[in-house]
Amino acid sequence: MIQPGGNRRVIITNVSPSVEGGLFPAKAVVNETITLSADVFGDGHDEIAASAFIKHKSDTQWTELPMQFMVNDHWQITFRAEKLGFYEFRIEGWEDHYTNWKKGLKKKYAAGQDIAVELQIGANLLKEAAAAMPAQSKQILQWANQLAQTTNPEENVTLALSDDIAKVMYQYRNPELVTVYPTTFTIEVERTKAAYSTWYELFPRSTASEPGKHGTFKDVAKLLPRVAKMGFDTLYFPPIHPIGEKNRKGRNNSLTAGPEDPGSPWAIGNRLGGHKAIHPELGTLEDFKALIVEAEQHGIEIAMDIAYQCAPDHPYVKSNPQWFIWRPDGTVQYAENPPKKYEDILPFNFETDDWENLWKELKSVIDYWVDAGIRVFRIDNPHTKAFRFWQWMIGEVRVKTPEVIFLAEAFTRPRVMERLGKAGFNQSYTYFTWRNTKQELEEYMTELTKTEMRYFYRPNFWPNTPDILPPALIKGGENAHITRLILAATLSSSYGLYGPVYEFGINAPHGAKEEYVDNEKYEIKHWDWSAYTRIGEVITRVNRIRKQNPALHSTWNVEFAETTNDQIISYVKTDEDTGNSLIVVVNLDVFNTQSAQVKIPMPKLGLDYADTYVVRDLLSGSKYTWGEFNFVELNPYQMPAHIFKVEKQ
Amino acid sequence: MIQPGGNRRVIITNVSPSVEGGLFPAKAVVNETITLSADVFGDGHDEIAASAFIKHKSDTQWTELPMQFMVNDHWQITFRAEKLGFYEFRIEGWEDHYTNWKKGLKKKYAAGQDIAVELQIGANLLKEAAAAMPAQSKQILQWANQLAQTTNPEENVTLALSDDIAKVMYQYRNPELVTVYPTTFTIEVERTKAAYSTWYELFPRSTASEPGKHGTFKDVAKLLPRVAKMGFDTLYFPPIHPIGEKNRKGRNNSLTAGPEDPGSPWAIGNRLGGHKAIHPELGTLEDFKALIVEAEQHGIEIAMDIAYQCAPDHPYVKSNPQWFIWRPDGTVQYAENPPKKYEDILPFNFETDDWENLWKELKSVIDYWVDAGIRVFRIDNPHTKAFRFWQWMIGEVRVKTPEVIFLAEAFTRPRVMERLGKAGFNQSYTYFTWRNTKQELEEYMTELTKTEMRYFYRPNFWPNTPDILPPALIKGGENAHITRLILAATLSSSYGLYGPVYEFGINAPHGAKEEYVDNEKYEIKHWDWSAYTRIGEVITRVNRIRKQNPALHSTWNVEFAETTNDQIISYVKTDEDTGNSLIVVVNLDVFNTQSAQVKIPMPKLGLDYADTYVVRDLLSGSKYTWGEFNFVELNPYQMPAHIFKVEKQ
Repeated sequence: MIQPGGNRRVIITNVSPSVEGGLFPAKAVVNETITLSADVFGDGHDEIAASAFIKHKSDTQWTELPMQFMVNDHWQITFRAEKLGFYEFRIEGWEDHYTNWKKGLKKKYAAGQDIAVELQIGANLLKEAAAAMPAQSKQILQWANQLAQTTNPEENVTLALSDDIAKVMYQYRNPELVTVYPTTFTIEVERTKAAYSTWYELFPRSTASEPGKHGTFKDVAKLLPRVAKMGFDTLYFPPIHPIGEKNRKGRNNSLTAGPEDPGSPWAIGNRLGGHKAIHPELGTLEDFKALIVEAEQHGIEIAMDIAYQCAPDHPYVKSNPQWFIWRPDGTVQYAENPPKKYEDILPFNFETDDWENLWKELKSVIDYWVDAGIRVFRIDNPHTKAFRFWQWMIGEVRVKTPEVIFLAEAFTRPRVMERLGKAGFNQSYTYFTWRNTKQELEEYMTELTKTEMRYFYRPNFWPNTPDILPPALIKGGENAHITRLILAATLSSSYGLYGPVYEFGINAPHGAKEEYVDNEKYEIKHWDWSAYTRIGEVITRVNRIRKQNPALHSTWNVEFAETTNDQIISYVKTDEDTGNSLIVVVNLDVFNTQSAQVKIPMPKLGLDYADTYVVRDLLSGSKYTWGEFNFVELNPYQMPAHIFKVEKQ
Repeated sequence: MIQPGGNRRVIITNVSPSVEGGLFPAKAVVNETITLSADVFGDGHDEIAASAFIKHKSDTQWTELPMQFMVNDHWQITFRAEKLGFYEFRIEGWEDHYTNWKKGLKKKYAAGQDIAVELQIGANLLKEAAAAMPAQSKQILQWANQLAQTTNPEENVTLALSDDIAKVMYQYRNPELVTVYPTTFTIEVERTKAAYSTWYELFPRSTASEPGKHGTFKDVAKLLPRVAKMGFDTLYFPPIHPIGEKNRKGRNNSLTAGPEDPGSPWAIGNRLGGHKAIHPELGTLEDFKALIVEAEQHGIEIAMDIAYQCAPDHPYVKSNPQWFIWRPDGTVQYAENPPKKYEDILPFNFETDDWENLWKELKSVIDYWVDAGIRVFRIDNPHTKAFRFWQWMIGEVRVKTPEVIFLAEAFTRPRVMERLGKAGFNQSYTYFTWRNTKQELEEYMTELTKTEMRYFYRPNFWPNTPDILPPALIKGGENAHITRLILAATLSSSYGLYGPVYEFGINAPHGAKEEYVDNEKYEIKHWDWSAYTRIGEVITRVNRIRKQNPALHSTWNVEFAETTNDQIISYVKTDEDTGNSLIVVVNLDVFNTQSAQVKIPMPKLGLDYADTYVVRDLLSGSKYTWGEFNFVELNPYQMPAHIFKVEKQ
């Protein structure tokens, strides 16, 4: 059996951006330069043409973007998306008979061959186009007649090759001979913050000005100027809901809580309410809304933590028992990793027959807080909830409110973390927390930025979290805190800190665990917010540098520079639109001064190999004249890094 | 809107083998070990299971192959296809509740926890299965009752973990909770020769025993013992059809032929017939069929050349003028690459409105020769004919006669060569002809064997062809002929030579071109088939080594060994089924003796790093005791290579 369309000679393949062959949208942000590309080719050596067609899902008209031939049958075109939401694009290709004819004409004319018959062929091609394009037929027929009648070959060739004709003839194609790639691909365009954000995490209950008191949203409001001054644009709270009283955990995760123990905010729900309620000691819903508004005035968004799990006394357990697993002895199944038991937490059963209502209720939690003014959610342990739920929920929320950003807090296996990105999470925690050596950092950055991950996985680098105190910070102390902060903030355009503990350089582990002892998860802390620290000073400077340099607003523009010392890592970042270029050099040895020759990838800076240029260290203010090979020496007790701005001469 | 199936928690992705996400079949040969694999995972930490389902397209029943967990959520299973033709496979995954329960039971029991309720849960899982599997329900219910009633926990745990229950419970799954990957993938299983073949090309017209005479099929028959003795299994002829008389080319591709000039066999067709006719001076169709049969008796298959193009006097030009392009002056369009003209060749117009009949006629040419007994076709310049035609034609031919092998003679851009492989060509010419340095060879082999190409592109390495005399052979003379032959024959499981010219070391170029002067394409040659040559001797030895060593029957098992000299390349090949292992070491410098240390990838030989083993050079007979690091020295005037067989102690 012969399928129709066998005379379509052009082949299209390897379309990009594409995530799993188009099963998932590729990610972009507003005004980002997006490259649409494909391999497009025909049999033989005839000229072909290719176009991308793109439209916002809400538009009815497609825009045609003629693609440009690059190399090895690869074609591409760039565009900037101006609207939030979902764009669709498809690729078409066809044999370009007119251009092909021109190519032959030019060569034959140059070789002095008789072109009389050639000109007739060209005129026929024009007539064919005229018949198909009534609006332009008069003009085209005039050209055709000129070609057929003029006796001066030079005039004819000039006419045939004119841009006017080229423009019109590009529009002409025989639809029966046009190859359309069968998949229409999707690009999700999000707001800038999805790609560039700076997070500070604190526990609101630890913000009271007096020791021993429970902090409130009003206390947090007082800290907003400080957070803004340090350069953070996102202030993220652990869950703010009522905390379970049944099986509540005590200090240091002990099994029994004393009467004064506040419990873990991730044990959500008690007789006072669940995921749509606020822990009364923090304040009221009105207080919370007021804080959101006040934060906005400081350029800060409040990010909420959503942990889809319940304390045993969460109202859902009674109102919707079908969403939990019940054991033959009539008890409800708590979370466990045998033989360990987590008796303060009940997981939802995503295999329940009532899964549709469960999904709807969980989504309504997001809707509730979006209505309250929240646009940024950090999702706790998303890898222990069904992937299909996330894909549906995030899609539904963002169709209505495309500004909403979801950060996936998954520290688990690579395929699982990737899938959450594909399912729609705008940002994801990463393995950065444990990538310390030059080779580890370079390999991981290459994976994140030079593979298909580039299109579905937006990293958010966290040197620490309330759950994770990595060995590098335990062993390396203050110097390590500064080094890891600079790496996070300059490698990734989104990064965050579990703030007070980080600023104050607290790094006492809980026994042999990679966790903080006397963890704030289980107790209320009191911080001296006015204390000056070297770490806090560097955070502030680095965040200012981030704000002022668009090169740091993208993760995907990183290019590593070779160095002669494995303790010295260096990378170049350039923003194509503004020409802003930085060279970052970091000493990974937090105990010793290290030096190296750094070999700059000159073409990435738009420079020739023999050029010199001025670099100004945005951390220290020093200026140097640099070339391709440059000597650096960094003392971690002073400053473990240079963040050089390239100033071309 | 919520799609059904949201409670299916398992995710499947990255299925292999897959060519363009399943758009094209992956290639395999009969009895080859095929690995089916996928990333399969669920949310959380529960146990899952995955199976591949496979069937030959002609079968009605699927066979379930339970997959094994490897690492990082990757699952796989191997199978051997016993039938020629198309197999289909799909992947399924599901939460394995029973195994998950067992895992918890084991840990809780080991930790001394009370398992009474656990046992009830297990009994319930068994009852659920019993209800779904009536045939086995009696046995399952018996186990369930035992679990629920026995009071000895050790007995219960032993029963719960028994293989008998495991086997039955693997079969049980709730179909509503099984994830089925949406694409069903195809594997085309071909005969062994598609992957392992040894080609000799000669012009039948140059086989007459008397100089000046036109060779015949009967003359070729006399050479069969010689070809077989040299170890070739495929004897390939340029086109054997009547040669165009109009615009015939003379010697050395001159524009005008003398009355004695035989013309190029690729200018097909004259008043005596076209693609289904035989050039009368070669013999009759009966002679040809007799030759096919006689060749078979020597273990040799005759390969025909199919060039879909016409001489100006080909019968099609009159009978089917609509298949050609006609110019306004009433002449038919010949092939051209302006300003060059190829007036002895008319291309088909694959954009003709009558393309369906053109396709059918072109396919009928193959059918005709298949009926005559031919099973191997070398297709001339397939990249200048429509890709969709190949995909249809090859598919149709092979559904009926799956033994047929098509070799794509395309020397063109990478994406085009790749597409021909995807379209169904079983073997393809390659860039090997121009890959000379160690780095070039290693990179090219890696691309061919370690990327998706592995599944759709079967290389056939040719050091020369009648069209190509590469610089390496011009400059390097006899030594280069030997080196390039050994590389072709040991890197690739399929290779071929344009034979007589190669054996006799003829390498005089046509001016500055990379072509033979006095090219056999345009004149009849007379060869002294009895002459002894060093090149011929090495060909014979190497082909014997190929036959005796299954490690050389695959291209994809190549693993490079590091050497301390860029002029020395080394690689290991192992056949997993027989354990046959070879180490090949080649001196790429055809003028000077070179030496190096070779570092053997010991694990690829199934050896520990400290092991020693004996290697026997199959070319020279010498034996050495080797370890991980070994010294080699090779003189290209003696023998530029070792082909070591590994003999473990």
